[in-house]
Formats: sequence, C-alpha cells, structure tokens
Amino acid sequence: MSLTNASPADAAQAAKSASHVLQTLPAATRNEALAAIHDGLAAARDDILAANARDLELARVAAADGRLSQSLVSRLDLGKKGKWEDMLKGILDVRDLEDPVGRVTLRTRLDDGLELERVSCPIGVLLIIFEARPEVIANIASLAVKSGNAAILKGGKESTESFIAISRVISTALESSRVPNGAIQLVTTRDVIPQLLALDRYIDLVIPRGSNELVRYIKDNTKIPVLGHADGICSTFLEASADPLLAAEVIVDAKTSYPAACNALETLLVQESALSTIFPLVASALAAKGVELRCDAKTKTAALANASPELAAKVVDAVDADYDTEFLAYTLAVKAVADVDEAILHINTHGSKHTDAIITADKALAEQFMASVDAAGVYWNTSTRFADGMRYGFGTEVGISTNKIHSRGPVGLEGLMIYKYKLRGNGQVTAAYGEAEGQKRFRYEQLPL
Amino acid sequence: MSLTNASPADAAQAAKSASHVLQTLPAATRNEALAAIHDGLAAARDDILAANARDLELARVAAADGRLSQSLVSRLDLGKKGKWEDMLKGILDVRDLEDPVGRVTLRTRLDDGLELERVSCPIGVLLIIFEARPEVIANIASLAVKSGNAAILKGGKESTESFIAISRVISTALESSRVPNGAIQLVTTRDVIPQLLALDRYIDLVIPRGSNELVRYIKDNTKIPVLGHADGICSTFLEASADPLLAAEVIVDAKTSYPAACNALETLLVQESALSTIFPLVASALAAKGVELRCDAKTKTAALANASPELAAKVVDAVDADYDTEFLAYTLAVKAVADVDEAILHINTHGSKHTDAIITADKALAEQFMASVDAAGVYWNTSTRFADGMRYGFGTEVGISTNKIHSRGPVGLEGLMIYKYKLRGNGQVTAAYGEAEGQKRFRYEQLPL
Repeated sequence: MSLTNASPADAAQAAKSASHVLQTLPAATRNEALAAIHDGLAAARDDILAANARDLELARVAAADGRLSQSLVSRLDLGKKGKWEDMLKGILDVRDLEDPVGRVTLRTRLDDGLELERVSCPIGVLLIIFEARPEVIANIASLAVKSGNAAILKGGKESTESFIAISRVISTALESSRVPNGAIQLVTTRDVIPQLLALDRYIDLVIPRGSNELVRYIKDNTKIPVLGHADGICSTFLEASADPLLAAEVIVDAKTSYPAACNALETLLVQESALSTIFPLVASALAAKGVELRCDAKTKTAALANASPELAAKVVDAVDADYDTEFLAYTLAVKAVADVDEAILHINTHGSKHTDAIITADKALAEQFMASVDAAGVYWNTSTRFADGMRYGFGTEVGISTNKIHSRGPVGLEGLMIYKYKLRGNGQVTAAYGEAEGQKRFRYEQLPL
Repeated sequence: MSLTNASPADAAQAAKSASHVLQTLPAATRNEALAAIHDGLAAARDDILAANARDLELARVAAADGRLSQSLVSRLDLGKKGKWEDMLKGILDVRDLEDPVGRVTLRTRLDDGLELERVSCPIGVLLIIFEARPEVIANIASLAVKSGNAAILKGGKESTESFIAISRVISTALESSRVPNGAIQLVTTRDVIPQLLALDRYIDLVIPRGSNELVRYIKDNTKIPVLGHADGICSTFLEASADPLLAAEVIVDAKTSYPAACNALETLLVQESALSTIFPLVASALAAKGVELRCDAKTKTAALANASPELAAKVVDAVDADYDTEFLAYTLAVKAVADVDEAILHINTHGSKHTDAIITADKALAEQFMASVDAAGVYWNTSTRFADGMRYGFGTEVGISTNKIHSRGPVGLEGLMIYKYKLRGNGQVTAAYGEAEGQKRFRYEQLPL
C-alpha cells in the first residue's frame, strides 16, 4: 500500500501493475493480508482515535461556523459507540467470506482435448471516492484485497488525519504480506478527482460512496463505469385490496425507520378506490410519526376528510417536482392513481430504478407489478428498506446499484468480479472445423463444474 | 416496429415505453413474433433482393470512384451464396434458444414468509449501430425480441434500400404479433448518431457492429455503456518447450485463417531460447502463407539465419507502433522476450484484452500465463481464432466484448440480460430485525432454484 503524493496517473499506473500480481495470489495469501490489517489496526487504536479527534475538532469548528453539516461531523466520528469495533469486525467478516476468485461457471468440451472454462476473476483496478466516514478506508481496502482488485482510494478532506493514520497502519500490515505495495493506492493530494476520472486506461470501475451530488458529479464526468446510484426515489403502491394494518406498518417502516437512507420511501401511490378505505389509516400513522404528506388534490381531500388535527397539520399541497424528489427526510409525496397500470407507468417514468413496492392482497396484481416495474428491487407487501446487502445476506455491501448492466441492487463481492475464458487445447486449429466435407464438428459437451 | 422519421428522442422514448410491455411478454409470444418475421422475410425474398441490388449498384459505382472500399461492397451483397438462407435460418436458431428471461439465480428465505428471488430480465433499450451488412437488421431484431429488449437500429447509409425493405417486412410481421409497435425502432434519418448517443435517459446499452473507427467514435462520444471492442490485438507467446509442428499449425491458423477478424493474431512473442530452435519453422510456415514478419533485432537475426529466399523476402524491421497495431492483414509483429513473465508484461501493456495464447509443453507455465494475462480469452496450445460465440457453443453472438464489467469475450443472449430482485413478504418491517433484545434475526435459508 502506498500513501502517495504521486500524480494520479502514476498512482493509477502502479495500481494497474500491482493488480496483475494481486489477481494471481491464492486465497490464503489474501486472507492473511486481511488478518494483518485487522491486527495492525487493533494495535494502533489509540493513535488512530487521536488522529480522528483532531479531524473532529476541525469539523466541529467548521460546523459551528455553518461551513459543514452536523450530520457530516457525526459520520466522521470513529469514537462513536461500536463504530471502531464494527470496523475491525468487518475486516474479519470479509476475510471469512467464500473466495470469489476462480469460480468455474461454465465448462464445455468443444472437442476432444479442447476444453473451454469460464472462471471468475477480479475486474482490475477500482477507484473508490468517498466523503467523510474514515472507516470506509478499512472496509474498502478489505473488499479490494479479498476480491483480488487493486484500489485507488480518495477520501474527503474532512477525514484527512484519520485517513493518513489508518493508511499508515494498513500500509505497514501489507508490507508484511505478499500483496504488492501498489495494490492499494491512497491519494491524499487535493483536487485530483477530475484527473482520476480521466484515467480510463488504468481504472476499470469507479465506486462513489457519498452524497447524491458526489455520485452525480462522478457519473457526469467520467467514461469509466460507475457502480452505485445517484438517486433513490423509492415508491410504494397502495392497492385497494391491501390489509389496512399491514399497509400502515409497512409504509411507516419504509418512510420513517431511517429517512436519510437511499431505500427509504419517497412517493406513495394510492389507488383511488382505496382513498376512503385504507388511506386514512395510513396517513394518520405517517402523521403520527411526524411525516409531512405532500398530496395531490384527490389524496388531499381524502386525507383531510375526518382528519385529526395532528393529521390535518401534516397535509400540504404537492408540486410536480415532489414526484421526482428524494427527500431523505420526514416528507412523502402522495398521489392518487386509478389502478396498477397507472402506478407502474408512474414508477417507470419518475422512479430511479432502485426499489419499489406494492401492498395488495391480490397475488396476480403483485406479480404483474413485480414483472412490469423496471427497478433493481420489486417488493410485495414489505418495506423498501429491506434493499440492503446485509439484509439480503450478502455479508458485505459495496453499494447499491441502479445501473442496468453488470450489477444491480445491493452489490456484494460478486459485483467486483468479472470472468475470463480459458481454452486449453493440444494444437487444434479453427480451419479444421466447419460444415464442409472433411471438416470436424464441435462436440459442445457440458462438463460438471 | 416503426420505420421512423421521428426525432431520435421520440424514437428512443417510444422504445423505452415499449420495452416495459415487451419485458412482460411470455416466451411463446416472443417466439411467435420471431416465426412471423422469418415467414415474412421468406415471402418477400424477391423484393428485398431487388432493393439490395439497387444498394449494390450505387455502392459499385462508389467503389469504382474510390469512394467506397471493395470489402464494404462485398459485405453489402445479400445475394451472395448462402447469405440469404443463413439470415433466415439465424432467426429460427435464435427462436429455438432457451428463453433467457425469468431465470431464477438466487432464492433465499430471509425469514418466514419473506422470500428473496433474483430473476433474469431484459436490460431495457438497446441501440444498435451498424455499417453495411443489411442482414444485421434481421439478426439484431431477432435477438432483441428473443431477449425481451426494445431496440433502436441505425444502419449505414450504403444499405438504406435493403434496410427499408427488410424493415417494412419485419414491421408488418410484428404488427400481427403482441410485441408492441415501438419495440423495434428503425431510424433512417441521417446524421442522428450524435443525438442518439446523448439519449442515456432512454437507452441502456449501445452495441456497435462495424469498423474499429465506428466503435472508437461511439465509445468516445457517449455515457451509455458500450458492449463491444474497438481493437483486437491478439498475441501468442511461443515458449521454448513448445512442439514445433503444433506451434506452426496453431500460429498459421491464428494469423491466416481470416486475417480481417478481430480474433486474428497480430503479435507473436518468441522466447529467446526458442529463436534458433522452433521459431525458424514457424517463420517459414507464415512466410509460405504470405505473411510479412515485422521483427525486432533478435527475431530478425533468427529469422534470416539460413532463411529461404521466400522467408527472407518477408522479414522487415518492426517499429514500436507495430506492437500496438491491429493489422487485419497478412502482417505480423514479432518480438523476442526472455521468458513468460516478460511475455505477460508485454501483453498486459500492449494487448487489447481480447484473446491471447501461449504455446508450450509446460502445464505450469501455461496456467501461470492464463492466470496472469488480463484478457477475455486466455488460451493454451490453440488458436486465438476460436474466440467466437458460435465456436464457444453460445448459439448466437451479439459481439465480442473487451470490457471489464458485465460481459466479456464472445457475448451471447446472456449479455443482453440483467436481473431484478423480487421480495415477497406478508407485512414484514425492517425495524423488527436486528441484534437488540426483542428483535428478530434473519434466517438466510438458501432455497432450491
């Protein structure tokens, strides 16, 4: 690992060279390196927390001056209960995952002595750009080493001291391992993001970990594939046959269990025939949790009919932009739709392909909704907040992708892998195969994996 | 299918809407549409060949004036022996492939009554830009319908008449099917490629079918993911333990069986200790086929020692750029390397991640080469020309990808698919799960597929 003041191009070139070695290391070697990182960090706890305290002090001053948000200060704090322990445990959790490298996913005997094999392998060089949270360095370095990918890490300036302290430890730990030095590049020079984003000849995948603005900036300024999502505009369609209590519980969870998350509910679509039956209970439950309801005319009328003062105070008029907005707050856009078709059309037009749900007792409608909505996650009678790599059982999460190719939805280690085809022969030539007389035919015998 | 003079944005928006319907159609419906396309084309043979003859006439005039290459004229000719029949057969072959839609690749019981399923689904809207070959329209329309993707087709101007004739037939055939009209958009207005490439809000994947220049232009001018390859700089490393006859046969096949193909050999790396033993036979075999050898100093000396006049006439000095050139002709760059490590380094620096081979009798060296070379195809003792979807047994080929994500190497229907996660519950909420007292744990029970 290099903590580098080298130019971004030199760092990226070094990462590319190192990736060619790293991809050939056996799992045991990569796992040993992860154990060394864990032990090194555990031993350096006091130094790192002291560095983090210096970052925090500067950040608190900046927050007091209004130059930094309070939530960013909070994300910066490595000393927060359980955070340090979680970071260390995360490294061992990644180490203990099944090796993603070298999995054979296809074996075909093309002809006698000519066998084709498709084998999983690392993508190459990852560029990870993140904002405040310093523990992301350890997390991402672990994922990179485990998956056999080199990585270039660029952190936010607010966590510089923590970043350098953690980096030094990881660097020393990796020096004692067979993972090549250049495999993890830590770029601390400032204002290099545009330069890094131009290095598509060395960098194979960008993973942004931060605000929507950061992700959008990156997507708009690079030719390198970006794994992640800018927006998480998740919708739920409340269908007329839904169980009212179930609907209220699921919708309240989706909106309020963590409103700042990308998988939180942002738009509620209500079937017109449910406006006077189920919707009032749901609206009341949301208002009781402090959720402001931005309603169109029909849902407003329905919400205000016999509304408690508590609910009435939370109902406001929606504007068009509300249906394209990720509020990340106790705010919900609400709209009436005639039926499942209109709900699907609305979501496919305004959604962000993240996660969308239907609440209904009708299985056929649920299946239609799940088949027709174009999103990474399509849910029936449950909360959009389940869209998460840990909750899906992937063990770790690289991010949540709203891309249409490669990896979609919560992405685990699998998203850092690609494959290569190995073809082993003993002198076969293509000119010998064909349909003409005297030519050979392929056998195409599928072999066990 | 619409043969449209609409604006590119309108065409793309219509394709996106249609894709939401197309993705829900059952396999039988999609297959019926393919049969209808096949039958329609078969019935319209004479009209289409007449239109093609008009294109050919214009192209021959242009070629005579030097405004068009002879090889393009040849690619344009639908009347060439077997081409029409192959086009028709290709449609039925695609129809008869296993349905790629709706395959379940993961099923996990997260908790009682809460089941996660990962299901293959179409990507959405494909933009296919191709040059002269008019049969590509039928080929791509078939792949799109089979895979449940909408497609926007933009052909080269040289095949306009053929394109319009085939399009009308496909359009009529699809009108008799349940595939929505907008699912295949044929854009015939000129100079619209830059506009299409800007429509990343509607188009999910671009597949260029044409020259390296076309592909490079597209890759450089869009944010939409591009599936394909600009260069095919394939190398073979001739190791000292190789069987000389096997080496000569494989290398001659790789270079000469179809030099214009992307999987043809462009660079031969020769181990220094094989220069006086195996290389002369290989060089003579290549020269006998008319291959010009662009040699560095060491390989030149070796080639000229005791060379026949035939061989001597084919040996010329290489310049640096030769090792980064896709000749697509009877020309081969040749270079001496000390060992497998230097060969790997050369390929990882100069190659295009397409297909590279080692010729050796040493299994350990072969495995090292295949693990270390970063390419879609890594071969042992066989010809790079095997890199082909039909030869791999994929039944059809969308193209060959040198990308590092999504699909790599020869790409069949699988490359046109992505997946979505379906989560079916009965009112579960995320707040109920966690490590705290009274919270539930996930079960993560893997279910049979």
